[in-house]
Amino acid sequence: MKVKIPQNKLSKCINIVQKGVSPKSTLPILSGLLLEAKNNKLKLTGTDLQLGITTNIDCEVEIEGSIVIESKIFGDIIKKLPNKEIELEIDDSNNVHISCGSSDFNIIGQPAVEYPQLPKIDDETSIEIPKDLLKTMIRQTAFATAQDETRPILTGALLEITDNNAALVALDGYRLALKNVKVNSSTDIKVVIPGKTLTEVSKILEEDDSNVSIMFTSSHVLFDLGDTIVISRLLEGQFLNYKDIIRNEYKSKVKINTNEIKQSIERASLLAREGRNNLVKFDVNDDKLTITSNSEIGNVHEEIPITLEGNDVKIAFNSKYMLDGLKVIDSEEITLSFISNVNPCIINPTEDENYTYLVLPVRLAEEH
Amino acid sequence: MKVKIPQNKLSKCINIVQKGVSPKSTLPILSGLLLEAKNNKLKLTGTDLQLGITTNIDCEVEIEGSIVIESKIFGDIIKKLPNKEIELEIDDSNNVHISCGSSDFNIIGQPAVEYPQLPKIDDETSIEIPKDLLKTMIRQTAFATAQDETRPILTGALLEITDNNAALVALDGYRLALKNVKVNSSTDIKVVIPGKTLTEVSKILEEDDSNVSIMFTSSHVLFDLGDTIVISRLLEGQFLNYKDIIRNEYKSKVKINTNEIKQSIERASLLAREGRNNLVKFDVNDDKLTITSNSEIGNVHEEIPITLEGNDVKIAFNSKYMLDGLKVIDSEEITLSFISNVNPCIINPTEDENYTYLVLPVRLAEEH
Repeated sequence: MKVKIPQNKLSKCINIVQKGVSPKSTLPILSGLLLEAKNNKLKLTGTDLQLGITTNIDCEVEIEGSIVIESKIFGDIIKKLPNKEIELEIDDSNNVHISCGSSDFNIIGQPAVEYPQLPKIDDETSIEIPKDLLKTMIRQTAFATAQDETRPILTGALLEITDNNAALVALDGYRLALKNVKVNSSTDIKVVIPGKTLTEVSKILEEDDSNVSIMFTSSHVLFDLGDTIVISRLLEGQFLNYKDIIRNEYKSKVKINTNEIKQSIERASLLAREGRNNLVKFDVNDDKLTITSNSEIGNVHEEIPITLEGNDVKIAFNSKYMLDGLKVIDSEEITLSFISNVNPCIINPTEDENYTYLVLPVRLAEEH
Repeated sequence: MKVKIPQNKLSKCINIVQKGVSPKSTLPILSGLLLEAKNNKLKLTGTDLQLGITTNIDCEVEIEGSIVIESKIFGDIIKKLPNKEIELEIDDSNNVHISCGSSDFNIIGQPAVEYPQLPKIDDETSIEIPKDLLKTMIRQTAFATAQDETRPILTGALLEITDNNAALVALDGYRLALKNVKVNSSTDIKVVIPGKTLTEVSKILEEDDSNVSIMFTSSHVLFDLGDTIVISRLLEGQFLNYKDIIRNEYKSKVKINTNEIKQSIERASLLAREGRNNLVKFDVNDDKLTITSNSEIGNVHEEIPITLEGNDVKIAFNSKYMLDGLKVIDSEEITLSFISNVNPCIINPTEDENYTYLVLPVRLAEEH
């Protein structure tokens, strides 16, 4: 293999496929990147067997071939080289010769045949969605996936497509995030995509409105971003019926400025985090919301003007779960809906029915 | 005590005096900041007994008084408040009431009498130096102080003023950094200032050419930055005679582009850090410097054009120590002076005699 390739292009693409490489992989070959040179393209692949990322770069291929090279050192070297043309050449002993300007590196590679092949995905079932919209969907939901493995299915987000509506839902037993968008799809789809896959896809997605194709098999999902392809296993198992959790009835409906409530909770949580459960208390009373919190070193009292429809309510939350949701809402005003102080609070952007965030309250001992 | 003060001013000043607070102080009161309101000024103090920082803010003092409040939570609260006027009020039980907009905090304080007093410094011996010049002196030397306590005196930098020349010197047994500047001083001074003090002073110093006064007693140094005062203990003991270490003789003198050698060593160190001692080898030969390094996973070869006066030389270094010095040199070209491969290498900016960086070589086994 012998190729010539601009440093900035190669460095950018290594950065993309490295997101597929797990630092704690048990199989040594998986700490490497697969390089394949063919038809004036260099194809890079990184995978941890759950998630695989490939990207193609146009370049000058003098001799076709392939090699596996340790991901971290390869990325570090290419990043530090000057922005000039890099020549990569493999010798018969799998040594990778990297030269650029007056720098020459020789790095020991491994034979490409030992690298696992990514699964083949045919595109029988697929949807198209604008990149920026997919990025928003992921940003508003993926953070709510479970971080521990006690219920593996909850480490993923459910993507459910019915009647040209795509719902992406994540929940972890404390809160739930749901985003609905319109799509064109001839078939219905119901899959659970690992949270890590969504997060990595989101990092690679550019902020434009060109389309990404998403293809599905019974076991895998493929995101086609143009030069870059992300393939991931799906999670197996039954996801919770999220529609049962989100009830539309309410006894109190509060309209409030998003930024004001976010900043008040942030301040209250300075004391809450020193106490138990990050606890902040809400007191919805007539035309204001009072947020309080206390710990051994003191207490805090915040007041925010609101528009209330329905009953007054006193309820307490873990401030972290509240803030996680408020941080991903872009609208200026939100609506909080309450049934009682033992039922979840539902948060919607006031002008946008397509996003729902639900938080369970914390029951207070003194209320019993 | 009762004062009114703008949020942005107070937040900025807390940030300054917090640099005097040690997170691992054994005396609980030292995790607090001392607040003293008097004569329409609020004075803030933070200290770990080695280093003390005070700053004064103009403000509206309605009731004079003083209090100690836990540094971290106070700073976090003030930072998160809106940029409006803050009212601080102390009640008879040492509770600090902080109100701003519709936010109210009550934080438990401690009586100011329990807070240690900073030493009084008279200004019998003092010098003046422009802030930006002092900042440069510290940036170019303080990093070379010893980080471990085996020889405590080396955790500080020697400030030696003789004949209107101020030399700031730091060394740790592997390298030495020396900066000379012209000052006006009627008396000679020789003190060792803790590296931490210099680093914190540097962080507070603004980038302008107004003067800072530095005052000395036999045990303390005081930096007067205007509204902010930094007082620090000096280190006791005999500093090494650095002039004996820097020899002016040489057998080889190499002129080289600063950025080129820095980037080459950075690349070489990618492999060096995986091997022993961060080892990079220099081969000065005629009109080029070749830098090489190797480890189990490969090797690197870099070439840089030079102007050589004197003999060829082969010598090896710890790349980290080389890079530390190269990173603080602003000149485009440097001169490296060598005696032999077992003597230190001396680095000067080619057009600036006032900065000297010296690195000990690493002896290679195969050379014996």
